[in-house]
Amino acid sequence: MPTFVQLLEFIGTFAFAISGIRLASAKQFDWFGAYVVGLATAIGGGTLRDLLLDVTPFWMTNPIYLICSALALFWVILFGKNLIHLHNTFFIFDSIGLALFTVVGVGKTITLGYPFWVAIIMGSITGAAGGVIRDIFINEIPLIFRKEIYAVACVIGGIVYWCCTLLNLDLVLVQCISGSSVFLIRILAVKFQICLPRLKGE
Amino acid sequence: MPTFVQLLEFIGTFAFAISGIRLASAKQFDWFGAYVVGLATAIGGGTLRDLLLDVTPFWMTNPIYLICSALALFWVILFGKNLIHLHNTFFIFDSIGLALFTVVGVGKTITLGYPFWVAIIMGSITGAAGGVIRDIFINEIPLIFRKEIYAVACVIGGIVYWCCTLLNLDLVLVQCISGSSVFLIRILAVKFQICLPRLKGE
Amino acid sequence: MPTFVQLLEFIGTFAFAISGIRLASAKQFDWFGAYVVGLATAIGGGTLRDLLLDVTPFWMTNPIYLICSALALFWVILFGKNLIHLHNTFFIFDSIGLALFTVVGVGKTITLGYPFWVAIIMGSITGAAGGVIRDIFINEIPLIFRKEIYAVACVIGGIVYWCCTLLNLDLVLVQCISGSSVFLIRILAVKFQICLPRLKGE
Repeated sequence: MPTFVQLLEFIGTFAFAISGIRLASAKQFDWFGAYVVGLATAIGGGTLRDLLLDVTPFWMTNPIYLICSALALFWVILFGKNLIHLHNTFFIFDSIGLALFTVVGVGKTITLGYPFWVAIIMGSITGAAGGVIRDIFINEIPLIFRKEIYAVACVIGGIVYWCCTLLNLDLVLVQCISGSSVFLIRILAVKFQICLPRLKGE
Repeated sequence: MPTFVQLLEFIGTFAFAISGIRLASAKQFDWFGAYVVGLATAIGGGTLRDLLLDVTPFWMTNPIYLICSALALFWVILFGKNLIHLHNTFFIFDSIGLALFTVVGVGKTITLGYPFWVAIIMGSITGAAGGVIRDIFINEIPLIFRKEIYAVACVIGGIVYWCCTLLNLDLVLVQCISGSSVFLIRILAVKFQICLPRLKGE
Repeated sequence: MPTFVQLLEFIGTFAFAISGIRLASAKQFDWFGAYVVGLATAIGGGTLRDLLLDVTPFWMTNPIYLICSALALFWVILFGKNLIHLHNTFFIFDSIGLALFTVVGVGKTITLGYPFWVAIIMGSITGAAGGVIRDIFINEIPLIFRKEIYAVACVIGGIVYWCCTLLNLDLVLVQCISGSSVFLIRILAVKFQICLPRLKGE
């Protein structure tokens, strides 16, 4: 039986892969290309984190992430035209993934003995870098650099993690509070279209 | 005297570098830029594989790959206008490179003790990721995500490698069969314009 | 008190970050996106070098680089409209950064026991790869592949480093001569618009 966290991880991976595959389909990618973009969206952030931390990339120890991305591909092939109705569901799933990946990234970095400012960056990379790789693959300017608050939710979630740890809270509680803050900030940012200020071009 | 495999590796590196340099020249890159794109095409896949496997990138132990890419640059500078007539020759060379890089990638990963599903991915990365990096450098959507079967030939070659190993065949024979299958699939895919189905955009 | 080299490193990081942030602002990035692009420009080359050399990325041991990039962001937010007048100052700073990063990259690689041809590549990656990552993030063809001599200055600086070492010069002197050669070549290349020849497209 999968644990609750594994279930969340599965949902998050699935939602991230779906976002990659949908954007790839808009660019007329073939099935293989869409799978690679979906997979890169789902595991790209964690892979970059693990390369920087010099540990074996997490997906190389368990094929579940590849299988999960393949399921996402079959889903889009079968139900592609109806996905638009599930827009809100996928947005919720995507936000769950963002929250969970951030918490996992922060926790893993702390466990390896790095200071908290590194862990906050690694949490943000885990959550947000996959989307950047996705946008580079489909040859677009990364969405998260211009649209509603996304990676900043990860940064704040990492800071919340830090503060809760300073308060000596229980680890599970720390992770719940941190993850919930990422989730809520992301949901609220999209609902109220909260963006960061833009730089004015010269 | 170089061995037969070293000769194939030289041919493959040269052909991969040529493909990068030609696409760079179409974008008005200067000599240095074209060299970097050619080099990245030739060694990019193996470098990504070695980073993921946490071993020293293969080209850092022997300068032959850099020299081979430099020869490819001189070739294009000298004979650029006549390359179009050699289109079929380079296609054959490129397919040899794809087959050999895949086999090398699978073999190296198995030697390091990883399971076969990781080895198949690493073989595909070794063969196909260089072309993705090339297309990112020249700011185009990666060709292998939309055109004839390419990386899928690597995946199938990796599966063939696995099956042959299960049959306890001799290693050299395994590698010949696996490499030949990559080569043949690629050749047949282009000859008969076999593509994977495309996803329909929303 | 920071040493003279630390001061140069700070100036170089600041100038590299400014170049990333300015190009991001021309593409309407938000503050976070601009910060990421600035940071990637400043630390991207050294990070790629450290991944290839299999050592901990330099910025993960000292938050000064992140702080320095944040200062560059505040600078652009506050004085963005007047930056155009400082064009020449920033060009000088950027060239200082290029020279210093090259020397640091070559030195670090030699210290780790790699041969000189690897060190020259690592020096060039340290100096020039950040700009390539910047241009990929803003979805443009990398500038250094098409414009005035840039990475080639790093390559020549690395060769000068090598020659001086062969002459058994003192390390500090070697680094000064090597860095000065990078700086001078870059300044002269821009002043006299010295470009490498371009490849003619087919």
